[in-house]
Amino acid sequence: MQYGYADNKENILKRLKRIEGQVRGVARMVEEDKYCIDILTQISAVDAAMDKVAIELLRDHTKHCVANPAISPEARDAKVEEVISAINRLLRK
Amino acid sequence: MQYGYADNKENILKRLKRIEGQVRGVARMVEEDKYCIDILTQISAVDAAMDKVAIELLRDHTKHCVANPAISPEARDAKVEEVISAINRLLRK
Amino acid sequence: MQYGYADNKENILKRLKRIEGQVRGVARMVEEDKYCIDILTQISAVDAAMDKVAIELLRDHTKHCVANPAISPEARDAKVEEVISAINRLLRK
Amino acid sequence: MQYGYADNKENILKRLKRIEGQVRGVARMVEEDKYCIDILTQISAVDAAMDKVAIELLRDHTKHCVANPAISPEARDAKVEEVISAINRLLRK
Repeated sequence: MQYGYADNKENILKRLKRIEGQVRGVARMVEEDKYCIDILTQISAVDAAMDKVAIELLRDHTKHCVANPAISPEARDAKVEEVISAINRLLRK
Repeated sequence: MQYGYADNKENILKRLKRIEGQVRGVARMVEEDKYCIDILTQISAVDAAMDKVAIELLRDHTKHCVANPAISPEARDAKVEEVISAINRLLRK
Repeated sequence: MQYGYADNKENILKRLKRIEGQVRGVARMVEEDKYCIDILTQISAVDAAMDKVAIELLRDHTKHCVANPAISPEARDAKVEEVISAINRLLRK
Repeated sequence: MQYGYADNKENILKRLKRIEGQVRGVARMVEEDKYCIDILTQISAVDAAMDKVAIELLRDHTKHCVANPAISPEARDAKVEEVISAINRLLRK
């Protein structure tokens, strides 16, 4: 089965690849005793990049799985609850 | 016209009333020169309470407006984009 | 005793007054059945305004209470732990 | 020169190594077409883990660089501004 982000998969994987490199870059800065504030700036960049991936997944999921007119009202209500819980986890971390 | 949160309106208004009181409480703490850290704890509580209101509104909106099988695919796509932008604003503030 | 935000008190109280009005504005929008997305935009504005108050308090507190050369190293370590816990609560809400 | 997080370096590097693996895990989930909601849960976990690294760095930096009684009042004020801007970037992302 194909999930909602199928069309966007390459884009999302490219973003995640870049984030993996950014995290490695943060580790390198720590290893090389770089200045704390500069490391924190990089961490903010990783957070923001990760949020963008979350937003992409949420968009595709909402479009294809939650707002799917083919599913029953009960299934739709369950999907709404599920996505709202995921958004809540992202907001609260 | 009635929006998605109609059934939940009393609950949301009660929460907002309480948040208004919490903000007034924070101002009173500042006026009375209370300890900064205690004020910051109250601010975290206001943030969390405000997020709960946002989550309630998002749930009702997603259920009744975004995942509405009666609207056209184009209208639904527009609704998805709109709600995703709102979630993005909440995540990034 | 005067805490770190004493010089900034009027500014902070003015911001909190405005936030209280914004929360009341959100309640009014709910009462008048305004569109969910517009209400969520206002909630994001309240969150951002509240964060600015937190940042002002953190700045004054760090300047006057944490980075205070007159206190003992033990007292300073305790102040650092305390402010870091407050920042953690703001980040995680 | 040694920065504030020197004593904590191994711990921070271990956390970052684990986060790098978590990001790779998220990519693998996308590649294997795992369910969006499960991927979002993992992204929340990465966000939380990254915040913990930020908090560790902030603690050490505040202790050793900001609240350093050996530096001049002007240098201290500059350090406070710098760390507050970093906290602001973390809060707003």
